[in-house]
Amino acid sequence: MKAAVLKTYDPEVTDRRWVEYEDVADPAIAHPREVIVRVGGAGVCRTDLHVIEGLWQEISEVQLPYIMGHENAGWVEAVGAGVTGFKPGDAVICHPLVTCGHDLACRRGHDMQCEDQAFPGLTRDGGYADYLRTHERTLVRLPDTLAPKDVAPYSDAGLTAYRAAKKAAKQLEPGQTAVMIGAGGLGHIGIQVLRSLCAADIIVVDRAEGALKHAENFGVAHTVLADGNEIERVKELTKGYGAEAVIDFVGEGNAVANGLAMTRDAGTYYIVGYGGRLEIPTMEMVVSEKSIVGNLVGTYPELVELMEMADRGLVDLATREYKLSEANQALHDLDAGQVPGRAVLIP
Amino acid sequence: MKAAVLKTYDPEVTDRRWVEYEDVADPAIAHPREVIVRVGGAGVCRTDLHVIEGLWQEISEVQLPYIMGHENAGWVEAVGAGVTGFKPGDAVICHPLVTCGHDLACRRGHDMQCEDQAFPGLTRDGGYADYLRTHERTLVRLPDTLAPKDVAPYSDAGLTAYRAAKKAAKQLEPGQTAVMIGAGGLGHIGIQVLRSLCAADIIVVDRAEGALKHAENFGVAHTVLADGNEIERVKELTKGYGAEAVIDFVGEGNAVANGLAMTRDAGTYYIVGYGGRLEIPTMEMVVSEKSIVGNLVGTYPELVELMEMADRGLVDLATREYKLSEANQALHDLDAGQVPGRAVLIP
Amino acid sequence: MKAAVLKTYDPEVTDRRWVEYEDVADPAIAHPREVIVRVGGAGVCRTDLHVIEGLWQEISEVQLPYIMGHENAGWVEAVGAGVTGFKPGDAVICHPLVTCGHDLACRRGHDMQCEDQAFPGLTRDGGYADYLRTHERTLVRLPDTLAPKDVAPYSDAGLTAYRAAKKAAKQLEPGQTAVMIGAGGLGHIGIQVLRSLCAADIIVVDRAEGALKHAENFGVAHTVLADGNEIERVKELTKGYGAEAVIDFVGEGNAVANGLAMTRDAGTYYIVGYGGRLEIPTMEMVVSEKSIVGNLVGTYPELVELMEMADRGLVDLATREYKLSEANQALHDLDAGQVPGRAVLIP
Amino acid sequence: MKAAVLKTYDPEVTDRRWVEYEDVADPAIAHPREVIVRVGGAGVCRTDLHVIEGLWQEISEVQLPYIMGHENAGWVEAVGAGVTGFKPGDAVICHPLVTCGHDLACRRGHDMQCEDQAFPGLTRDGGYADYLRTHERTLVRLPDTLAPKDVAPYSDAGLTAYRAAKKAAKQLEPGQTAVMIGAGGLGHIGIQVLRSLCAADIIVVDRAEGALKHAENFGVAHTVLADGNEIERVKELTKGYGAEAVIDFVGEGNAVANGLAMTRDAGTYYIVGYGGRLEIPTMEMVVSEKSIVGNLVGTYPELVELMEMADRGLVDLATREYKLSEANQALHDLDAGQVPGRAVLIP
Repeated sequence: MKAAVLKTYDPEVTDRRWVEYEDVADPAIAHPREVIVRVGGAGVCRTDLHVIEGLWQEISEVQLPYIMGHENAGWVEAVGAGVTGFKPGDAVICHPLVTCGHDLACRRGHDMQCEDQAFPGLTRDGGYADYLRTHERTLVRLPDTLAPKDVAPYSDAGLTAYRAAKKAAKQLEPGQTAVMIGAGGLGHIGIQVLRSLCAADIIVVDRAEGALKHAENFGVAHTVLADGNEIERVKELTKGYGAEAVIDFVGEGNAVANGLAMTRDAGTYYIVGYGGRLEIPTMEMVVSEKSIVGNLVGTYPELVELMEMADRGLVDLATREYKLSEANQALHDLDAGQVPGRAVLIP
Repeated sequence: MKAAVLKTYDPEVTDRRWVEYEDVADPAIAHPREVIVRVGGAGVCRTDLHVIEGLWQEISEVQLPYIMGHENAGWVEAVGAGVTGFKPGDAVICHPLVTCGHDLACRRGHDMQCEDQAFPGLTRDGGYADYLRTHERTLVRLPDTLAPKDVAPYSDAGLTAYRAAKKAAKQLEPGQTAVMIGAGGLGHIGIQVLRSLCAADIIVVDRAEGALKHAENFGVAHTVLADGNEIERVKELTKGYGAEAVIDFVGEGNAVANGLAMTRDAGTYYIVGYGGRLEIPTMEMVVSEKSIVGNLVGTYPELVELMEMADRGLVDLATREYKLSEANQALHDLDAGQVPGRAVLIP
Repeated sequence: MKAAVLKTYDPEVTDRRWVEYEDVADPAIAHPREVIVRVGGAGVCRTDLHVIEGLWQEISEVQLPYIMGHENAGWVEAVGAGVTGFKPGDAVICHPLVTCGHDLACRRGHDMQCEDQAFPGLTRDGGYADYLRTHERTLVRLPDTLAPKDVAPYSDAGLTAYRAAKKAAKQLEPGQTAVMIGAGGLGHIGIQVLRSLCAADIIVVDRAEGALKHAENFGVAHTVLADGNEIERVKELTKGYGAEAVIDFVGEGNAVANGLAMTRDAGTYYIVGYGGRLEIPTMEMVVSEKSIVGNLVGTYPELVELMEMADRGLVDLATREYKLSEANQALHDLDAGQVPGRAVLIP
Repeated sequence: MKAAVLKTYDPEVTDRRWVEYEDVADPAIAHPREVIVRVGGAGVCRTDLHVIEGLWQEISEVQLPYIMGHENAGWVEAVGAGVTGFKPGDAVICHPLVTCGHDLACRRGHDMQCEDQAFPGLTRDGGYADYLRTHERTLVRLPDTLAPKDVAPYSDAGLTAYRAAKKAAKQLEPGQTAVMIGAGGLGHIGIQVLRSLCAADIIVVDRAEGALKHAENFGVAHTVLADGNEIERVKELTKGYGAEAVIDFVGEGNAVANGLAMTRDAGTYYIVGYGGRLEIPTMEMVVSEKSIVGNLVGTYPELVELMEMADRGLVDLATREYKLSEANQALHDLDAGQVPGRAVLIP
């Protein structure tokens, strides 16, 4: 099959060709409950840029060359002997994590804490390819309303935004405020999810006028340009208190300090984006009684929930399509901040 | 002042004149933190019919003659010496319950469980009158967008619906279903609140085609006529399982048994309406692991939240206005099921 | 192997021999992840009496003759080809429910709501036998401190009591009160669990002086004889309010009405025992804002938690041992209320 | 009256006399609901040392000279005209915060977020004196079992430990682990509270052998000397994972980094002590999905709960008494780490 293969890291993030589009061996089923999925769309994620930088090298322990791509949707191509719930031809989106299903974390519904997990596209070959090997447990059936290439980025970007927004929504009451820092690929999903799951006012903060413009379509209360005065603006819009919830889809640069400053006493700062550093005196945490919550990708049931929302039109994903052979272009466009919504590779 | 006064109970609920429109003494401030409110609108509630029947006689211990009316909004007319937060002329809606503010229930935010409470309109004179005596603690300031006569019924009917819908919304995930039994005065508020606070599908069940028609404006997934086949219809619409949440605004007749039957295993049946009887074998409760939750009017902060929603246009209250002198007409229309939304008395 | 087999129902619950001790075919592994467990102990449960009465006939759809026994512990005897976590000789306790592991309920951690489940001892052959067929997913490894015959009843009776007590403990604050109705097989576990999981005062209500005496060992605040004045006594002990939580391990006779009456406004009545009928006016539920919660057996992770407590000596199970050949004796003793704690059959 | 007065800050924390024991004017009631309390005991808190350093100068805006002391208990001496619940002679402990009772935070039960608050001993004169002016809303009646001087430190130190431990207890299941960093004044209360409110294993980490020794009385699972290998030891004791909850009563030096490192993925690090700095890459927060929770003093209902525990002997406070005239000695002993438990000034 064809695939876009990463062969060496590029810690300087230069403008060279990062992946090679070439022939590789087809993946094969290695366990009775595994499946081969014909990729219909593979989302291109900022995490892939962090992989190229080498930031995940130590954590994921993957060996180069390998195939990135952890946001996958398509059609079941082949199933192992023990697969009972799916058959070839079924349209599916793949939860990014392959989990064991029987350790205590899985049994409690906390897939993400599974101790015996794999993450295709991060810890082994992923979906920048014609075919993907994954496990029956990752599959969520797609309704006819949703085409694989249109929903692939929900499987990680969308799901992460969903999880953080859902956590916040459970805490937010009408009359309270949520700030969303970053209205890009994850942020624009997070805004729509929060809009549907609670009645809090939403303030969107972004450096790009275009992203703010796009956000206005989703019923937000206010948009704030991140021009250096964003803390003051948010304070003004919240009677001086800050917001009960701040969801930070950026997580680097001054977003982190700003996000904490925008959080009201007793409120919560949710970290989704990363790359930066959290720094705050313990006294400030104690006096303000703030909470800080790290957010990883959501669970399998949360992906089911997100697909239910997409099926009902409650959330709409903006995508730009690239051919698989143009993977480098997609990655560089993302790095340059020139992808509105999410880039998706189409084999 | 003028008031509509209840002088005798009518256990048979005949069609006679229930209240007398007549002159009574003006109320006077009896405690430094009390206020007199000039009534702008007083909601007419099914509970008032239950009062007339004598159903509350024993619980409320009120002595006849007295003035009903527990859903009040208007303008502050006079304030006691200890009132610091309001001044004459302020537009306000009155939480129905006067609470002490210092017992453990109040200190925990559970106003409704206050041990030293009064309920104007139920346990002492209420708002079917030109003026109402209440306490600073009950007042919620109204924004300019909301006129007293348009919001008065939120203070009890709306608030009760809000509380039940909010409880349910915190439990409901996208892809799950809530059934609302009864789309009348409380129900049509409950539907809108639930619609804003979660992404669950809403099925509305009512005996009246008109109420179902009205409910369709609020983005519900399905309406079901209560024609005797409503359990089967709800089961069909939920793949045979029933709904994760059933909110029963009727609470009498077969609504109760139906509501329990429509509730999915591990789901919750919320009782809001009353008059009937809950009967179920304990074995069925154990095997199904269902929960049953009683719902009284919401807390003061919940009334603030509901007003925030109304101010943003997230909830819209249908009212029919009657002059205070037409109170009997309003009560009889309500009894006859001929009030769409809620009746409001205008002095 | 030997087994105690139920051949006909006895709706009148006479004093005849209910099960036959005889030779039956050994169970055989039917699926790669199944296991055969050599039974070390099989708990005798009130539900078995209800089975004999025919009360479960319609729900479980089991065909007679069959082998009861749903509270099993022992040693792994044989494993299917797909079993990875256990090997012959491992000491285990068996969660009573065989679940699929991949439907949404399982994926959310709600085993008990699995749509594709089996319940050995209830819906197919159970553990009143030398060997039991079950599934790897049901097994919890036992530490050396816990012998199978001493812990078997935890798997259903103990686990059910654990689940209800844990739900209550999460709601109860120091200074609040929990009433436990019934201090027998389930109740004496529930008391100990609640004692360890919160600091609320515990009042134990039972008809038997002996059970109350036994309960006093577990640090309860008060014991109350169910002599007809138990509601008054509980009210006296709670300043007239009743208890924030009432856990009813009886669920029949006047226990149900009493339990609801002992529950404080805004409190919760947990139903665990069954056989009776819940009857209450909806108005009372609304005015009191009480909740009623049905409780089935706990989840797999909850069984793990309970075994952690047993391993630390935080909960102690009173058992009386009978030989498997004496199953009828055990059942009749239970029916006669003559088993302190739980009866366990030892092959 | 006599009081120990702070006249100048000592940013270098030298060994000079920090407070002057001298005659000052008696406090007078300034509002109808205020009370004068005759001080029976005033706890000496590490926060007082931070006040002396000037660390609170900007936040509290208090003007020197003033009287420290925010952990007070005693007897009601005089009451304002509007006080209804207390009379002279009543034994009381004082919640440290004077709150308004009518803003939204108070109405929701979140006293600590009251927008119109005072903190005697921090923002105005406190209890290092014969008499203290406070408000009826702060008072919790003491049962005969509890003498003011023995419980005074519960009002802030104990209450803060209680709040953090209670938050953790609601999350911790049997078989899980909590690490308590620091077993001093707050820590030894936190350990006992956690012990009573859940069944998790407790690991206590402290630099002082004596504190670990003392902690062993409270049923902890393990003690770990903070000798530089404490992270490794905690990891060993938790099968390599770390603890589901880490409560840090130190909050400075390497405790913060250690505390975060000891926290298991998806676990929570609770900050109680302060003085240091929280520093962690956002990527680490995201990948581990940890939460960080700031903790201020508990609410009024939480102080009631803590007193209920003390009344039942579930928590025992170690104190060392000093005369009010020896306030400097107490402060210096605390600074030198030579006070086991909490120091209390006795007028």
